[in-house]
Amino acid sequence: MPQNGVAVLNGDSGSGYKNGTTNSHHPHRKLFDDDDVVPAQRDVEEDAADVRYPDGSVRLRNPNIELMDQDILYHLALGSGSHDLVEMFGDVKFVCMGGTPKRMEQFAYTIMAEIGHKLPCGTTLQDISQFSYRYSMYKVGPVLSISHGMGIPSVGILLHEVIKLMYHARVRDPVFFRIGTCGGIGLEGGTVVISDEAVDGALRNVLELTVLGKNIQRPAKLDRRLARELRGLADPEDPYDTVTGRTMCTYDFYEGQGRLDGAFCDFTEADKMSYLEGLHRAGVVNIEMESLAFAALTHHAGIAAAVVCVTLLDRLKGDQVLAPKEVLDEWQQRPTKLVCRYIKRYLQMKGRLSLEGHGSIAVKSPRRFKLVQQESETYD
Amino acid sequence: MPQNGVAVLNGDSGSGYKNGTTNSHHPHRKLFDDDDVVPAQRDVEEDAADVRYPDGSVRLRNPNIELMDQDILYHLALGSGSHDLVEMFGDVKFVCMGGTPKRMEQFAYTIMAEIGHKLPCGTTLQDISQFSYRYSMYKVGPVLSISHGMGIPSVGILLHEVIKLMYHARVRDPVFFRIGTCGGIGLEGGTVVISDEAVDGALRNVLELTVLGKNIQRPAKLDRRLARELRGLADPEDPYDTVTGRTMCTYDFYEGQGRLDGAFCDFTEADKMSYLEGLHRAGVVNIEMESLAFAALTHHAGIAAAVVCVTLLDRLKGDQVLAPKEVLDEWQQRPTKLVCRYIKRYLQMKGRLSLEGHGSIAVKSPRRFKLVQQESETYD
Repeated sequence: MPQNGVAVLNGDSGSGYKNGTTNSHHPHRKLFDDDDVVPAQRDVEEDAADVRYPDGSVRLRNPNIELMDQDILYHLALGSGSHDLVEMFGDVKFVCMGGTPKRMEQFAYTIMAEIGHKLPCGTTLQDISQFSYRYSMYKVGPVLSISHGMGIPSVGILLHEVIKLMYHARVRDPVFFRIGTCGGIGLEGGTVVISDEAVDGALRNVLELTVLGKNIQRPAKLDRRLARELRGLADPEDPYDTVTGRTMCTYDFYEGQGRLDGAFCDFTEADKMSYLEGLHRAGVVNIEMESLAFAALTHHAGIAAAVVCVTLLDRLKGDQVLAPKEVLDEWQQRPTKLVCRYIKRYLQMKGRLSLEGHGSIAVKSPRRFKLVQQESETYD
Repeated sequence: MPQNGVAVLNGDSGSGYKNGTTNSHHPHRKLFDDDDVVPAQRDVEEDAADVRYPDGSVRLRNPNIELMDQDILYHLALGSGSHDLVEMFGDVKFVCMGGTPKRMEQFAYTIMAEIGHKLPCGTTLQDISQFSYRYSMYKVGPVLSISHGMGIPSVGILLHEVIKLMYHARVRDPVFFRIGTCGGIGLEGGTVVISDEAVDGALRNVLELTVLGKNIQRPAKLDRRLARELRGLADPEDPYDTVTGRTMCTYDFYEGQGRLDGAFCDFTEADKMSYLEGLHRAGVVNIEMESLAFAALTHHAGIAAAVVCVTLLDRLKGDQVLAPKEVLDEWQQRPTKLVCRYIKRYLQMKGRLSLEGHGSIAVKSPRRFKLVQQESETYD
């Protein structure tokens, strides 16, 4: 698969909104009763023209925005009237999101080294959204690295504003990644999971939301081709497994994921195990808290998206994350590595990969560079 | 009302779990159909012994925790085996939460000055949870100031862990506050709203969660006495209104709150206005994204809690937050001021308020202090 690993990016034919024409009917979908909902957003068969302009740039499913004098992206500390968003973000191709500001800052520096992106001498990366005090955003050439906080509402606010940002900046066919952490089901800690679909706590492959008092559902579909291509980039030499499977997304970390160790617990260990084993049989391989909104909102916007998480524990064996910090830190690099490989491959094929520069400082001799740093530090 | 403003704190008689014995039946509750749910958590009539030990310290509704060798509060970077939580947090009385790390750091310094809490010379406040990279936590004597991020899942994870922290630290009858921002319904920007109850997007006064695949509901009750007492502390001289009312809590900021300016919008301005006016008639005075979990989880834990938010705009007049930064900054001080008054009053009554110290630096002459600072800065 690696040989055609980035074919999706050469046109919009692989974009999420074209994938499949019906909801997947999983045998376990009826495990729980569906609520009576208004099926308002069965958009999978709709035309690409709803979400793209002829030149491939992102079109919004909201006629109001282009009529507005200015659009303030409040939680990003950006605005269409105050900032030249085309100038700032027009070259973006990849949007990478993850939970914490710290992890996404690290991701930015990692991708900078991987793709050989150079900053002008005397400059460093700046958190573009620092004055929002909400999310952190770093830009490394064609890559945005943004923290999304925890849970569906937090990633949902961000996605609305980042999708609008893509529109204002006239970005063409962007690709979104979420890199994160999760609990595994029958997978040992440190396993990389590429989601092939996201389901809610009742195994439904939809994001349910209340709009003007009515329940609506949006299909939580991820781009299957992108997922396959990512899977194809897993290195057989990696000292850990990389798998593809169903991801369950919950609104709560403790009771909502069947943990026995929250502030409240009204079920027994046997209840929990029978629930988790049921999930396992239903093909759920991991549980986290953002994929449902990530899949549903990118799909609705016609944006190809993938979710790549590392398991921090096997929930069939426990509830608490007990691995030492250094081990957890190394595990969290794994989804980053896979996504970096994908981005690097794409830029390589486009002839946009610089193999010379690595980050912002031009180092001639790493050994002498280190010596100079050390000497400088000890001088007083 | 100010004269008995803190009576609730002299015993546990005002704690949330004793407030009322039935759900409030609001005429508008049937505006939308209720889903069929399992009424598993009708806990309002249960005994205080479920949530308190005889000495008033917090008891968990989870028999597993006391059997665990250690309990890692993963998202707080604290643990019952690694930290002496009684020594660190045993003196806590008030837990104040708000969205961003920045605002809660400011709150910590404000309450420090207000209650005259002194730090030893040469020390400053430290973010206790800095290594979680998730939440920020500051401690100022009996007050914890913690950021909760955005949305129900984010505040929910935090509440599980902070309630467990109260248990491990053997805190007696703590009082929780959320200070935040919101959209007003028929209230001009800058109005302070004390929530008397929290409702979801379908006006139900419950937090619905999926536990082991089943829907359960928890009453989202706030402490009415605490709300009345806070209302009584509003100063008639304040150049803004302080009101009490129903707060609607949503899972989404854009479509979920009927905004026309998200990445997606399938309704008209007329639909939106008719929805918001319906909310207005149903007694909803503001909309935010955390109160439902905040009310439901504190209530289930038997902890008295209040939500105090400032409106950033009147949603009957628009969707975008347009007030200048300086104005928004001043508005955000208003809930802080009210909660500070409450805490100060309590400590005053307990004889625990120091009127001498103000923060960590002992200033003899503010004028000379400033001169010394300025001189020091310009010296090179």
